[in-house]
Amino acid sequence: MTPKKTIERISLYRRIVGNLLLSGKKQAFSHEIAKLAGVKSSQIRHDFMFIGTNGRANAGYDLQELRGHIEGFLFGGDADNFCIVGVGNLGRAILAFFRARHKNIVIKAVFDKDPALKDRIIQGCRCYSIDDASEIIKKENINIGIIAVPVEQAKLVAQILVDGGIKSIVNFAPVPLNVRQGLFIENVDLTMYLEKAAFFSRNLSKLSEV
Amino acid sequence: MTPKKTIERISLYRRIVGNLLLSGKKQAFSHEIAKLAGVKSSQIRHDFMFIGTNGRANAGYDLQELRGHIEGFLFGGDADNFCIVGVGNLGRAILAFFRARHKNIVIKAVFDKDPALKDRIIQGCRCYSIDDASEIIKKENINIGIIAVPVEQAKLVAQILVDGGIKSIVNFAPVPLNVRQGLFIENVDLTMYLEKAAFFSRNLSKLSEV
Repeated sequence: MTPKKTIERISLYRRIVGNLLLSGKKQAFSHEIAKLAGVKSSQIRHDFMFIGTNGRANAGYDLQELRGHIEGFLFGGDADNFCIVGVGNLGRAILAFFRARHKNIVIKAVFDKDPALKDRIIQGCRCYSIDDASEIIKKENINIGIIAVPVEQAKLVAQILVDGGIKSIVNFAPVPLNVRQGLFIENVDLTMYLEKAAFFSRNLSKLSEV
Repeated sequence: MTPKKTIERISLYRRIVGNLLLSGKKQAFSHEIAKLAGVKSSQIRHDFMFIGTNGRANAGYDLQELRGHIEGFLFGGDADNFCIVGVGNLGRAILAFFRARHKNIVIKAVFDKDPALKDRIIQGCRCYSIDDASEIIKKENINIGIIAVPVEQAKLVAQILVDGGIKSIVNFAPVPLNVRQGLFIENVDLTMYLEKAAFFSRNLSKLSEV
């Protein structure tokens, strides 16, 4: 059993290690990575042992090797095929943000209910009718769906994705979705981040790290 | 001291109560709200007592009244002034997503280093040079900054915002930022959400709710 929080940290380490390599660094000690990630060194050593790698006492971690271990653990070799439902501002931004940036995240299709968008190529990605979702999900071997539709459509869209064979959902609609057991769902609430930042800008003295 | 997690839940309740009111519902019991929020009823009753409101045993919570309490707690009456740094796809999507949608979240300015964008009106919001950030932040009484720039610019931009007088930051750049004590920072890592969903789409049997 792998806790979600562990995967979140390992995903974060991937970006930190990548940034260190880009800056020309070849080795790093656990306490250096810990500082950048905002966790304790002991957490770093524990997490890296979990993914099957150890640092050397006098040189720390070889960053190139570490990245290989992290990516092997997270991605298992193959790229993951995604789709996005909803080609409004948010859907387009997600598409633009991830297009050709990440070798393991491949957005194979976008879906929308607007007939005017059907068969349009948006950021290099074909837009299909949501009515064809089940067929396209199977044909393109898509396992993960991103929901970027208005609140009132989110639940229906989640059901369409699940019925089509999707195993994991990232939901950006501002309503939490609960799907049946045996599926993974992550509800990402952008409004919550802004409201929280606003609250603490007015109540900084009340801020607790708990 | 208010834990961040409490504010996250209260922000979520605001959307749930709003959606219930939109659907025509006038009253709700704690267990109904709990189910929609994915928490226990006892958590709901505890959180609502924390913001100073109680339900009635035989009728539950009056939703209109409850929304007033939640909004009073979260927003304290005044709108909060935001700015966004970086007018690429993500910055524009955030601007479009929040423009005129939320009466307490007002995006007063966007900043970019591209001289071609200076003084352009984007989604009803003026774009300024990042060089003028300090002046505009003071003039427009902006307390919260949203960072939507590439990794290599994120740290510098955070420093510019903090020097300008910003109290809270929501950082969408895929690198965690640590700012000095007495400031609030929320690092939102969109890549992490997608990588996590991809991991669990391949390893659903390993999924633990911990």
